[in-house]
Amino acid sequence: MSGLTLAEAQKALAAGLKKAEAIGQPMNVAVVDGGGHLLAFARQDGAIRASIDISQRKALTSILMAAPTGALTPLVQPGAELYGLEQLAGGLVIFGGGIPIERDGEIVGAVGVSAGSVEQDTQVAEAAVAAVTRKPRTR
Amino acid sequence: MSGLTLAEAQKALAAGLKKAEAIGQPMNVAVVDGGGHLLAFARQDGAIRASIDISQRKALTSILMAAPTGALTPLVQPGAELYGLEQLAGGLVIFGGGIPIERDGEIVGAVGVSAGSVEQDTQVAEAAVAAVTRKPRTR
Amino acid sequence: MSGLTLAEAQKALAAGLKKAEAIGQPMNVAVVDGGGHLLAFARQDGAIRASIDISQRKALTSILMAAPTGALTPLVQPGAELYGLEQLAGGLVIFGGGIPIERDGEIVGAVGVSAGSVEQDTQVAEAAVAAVTRKPRTR
Amino acid sequence: MSGLTLAEAQKALAAGLKKAEAIGQPMNVAVVDGGGHLLAFARQDGAIRASIDISQRKALTSILMAAPTGALTPLVQPGAELYGLEQLAGGLVIFGGGIPIERDGEIVGAVGVSAGSVEQDTQVAEAAVAAVTRKPRTR
Repeated sequence: MSGLTLAEAQKALAAGLKKAEAIGQPMNVAVVDGGGHLLAFARQDGAIRASIDISQRKALTSILMAAPTGALTPLVQPGAELYGLEQLAGGLVIFGGGIPIERDGEIVGAVGVSAGSVEQDTQVAEAAVAAVTRKPRTR
Repeated sequence: MSGLTLAEAQKALAAGLKKAEAIGQPMNVAVVDGGGHLLAFARQDGAIRASIDISQRKALTSILMAAPTGALTPLVQPGAELYGLEQLAGGLVIFGGGIPIERDGEIVGAVGVSAGSVEQDTQVAEAAVAAVTRKPRTR
Repeated sequence: MSGLTLAEAQKALAAGLKKAEAIGQPMNVAVVDGGGHLLAFARQDGAIRASIDISQRKALTSILMAAPTGALTPLVQPGAELYGLEQLAGGLVIFGGGIPIERDGEIVGAVGVSAGSVEQDTQVAEAAVAAVTRKPRTR
Repeated sequence: MSGLTLAEAQKALAAGLKKAEAIGQPMNVAVVDGGGHLLAFARQDGAIRASIDISQRKALTSILMAAPTGALTPLVQPGAELYGLEQLAGGLVIFGGGIPIERDGEIVGAVGVSAGSVEQDTQVAEAAVAAVTRKPRTR
């Protein structure tokens, strides 16, 4: 059904948390399966709680859009083609920190990270994805 | 109330799917009745899943606004008269891909298409509408 | 990602619509993928429109609960173990008409049917599931 | 505000997952802080996905009601004093599987478990709570 096991999700999660510690920014890290359903989650001490939702929604957005959330940013600005996209499909996140997990050209899951800067969130998400795939799809 | 039958909706749907194949872009295509209620829907293999909601909402927006969704784009930009419109009426889509189906000056249904570029979505919606009406109202 | 193609979903949908015609009860029929995301839908002329949501939610419930919706009915009655279940997970349907599509012991999709009696809805869902699997999981 | 660290939440989570394995029933296990906000979550392979929401909502219900969710069951039956409670406060769970984590008479967090029978869910939640407190408040 999923393709991604809990063991793999926890491996990605641990890699993300480790990266967040290295950066020195407490984070919320979420891992979802290929259908966008939550598999594993952790919120580090001191990380803001708005990001509980944001991190999970970033992962879900990556699944629903089949793309990293950072790729959406230029497309949804005023005057751009998909302006207004963020309020559709139940609420999408349009800044970086959500990255799909791909295997053999198929999306089997996604990671969403939130609580730091977009740059930091993206770095942590990349570390998490890299732990369970050889070629993480990046920004 | 509706005027549009399932047979007609399926005819529009099939024409849209055929156009999407010709373009080479997998799509979500939705057909609603004159009240905005879903009649027929299909998601082609490989089409993004955020567009399940977006395609249906484009069709609904066309009914609620009595206009193609692409006509809303300039009206909702920052500084424009209807800035903020997209979050009203339960969530409207403000970019192209939703087109009303008109007969004798009356809107009897609408088509919503999503997953490609706005240009592609609009072309597929036009093909779908054209299959069940002689003079589709376009952008 | 899904396992179920649009062609298969349309085959299930067509089998459901045919069964509904044989019964003489207009229906809403929805087919979702293994993640609960809509693949194909049709509402027959005369079928009630509340069932647009109900049919899709039956299919989604079958995915989220990994069971036919009819199996939930005894479990959620007053005094029973899961009383109150129906308002959780975004709203679940606790009467028959939603059936998972299984292959090799894995749920790859689901069918949801609504607009007739629970008995009729279930018969139509069974016909739809049977069209794409040899051993449909029934009530 | 919380008092419960991620390390403690993960310790409770691990104890819950271990108990679920011993029982042989895949589970969703959620740990929230004293404000009801998610700290840690895991869904075991094969556990139903409706329980992603239900487990988290059980933990939240325990915080909002300052009680194990199982204590609510008799109070919400037809004719009982709190009949209808489950649809308030954003949706409460009224069957067992959510247990507060108490320290020195103060609730500092809660565990929510879902996917098995209510008896199994409660056993797993008790194991999780026991891992981070000496005297878990039970059913």
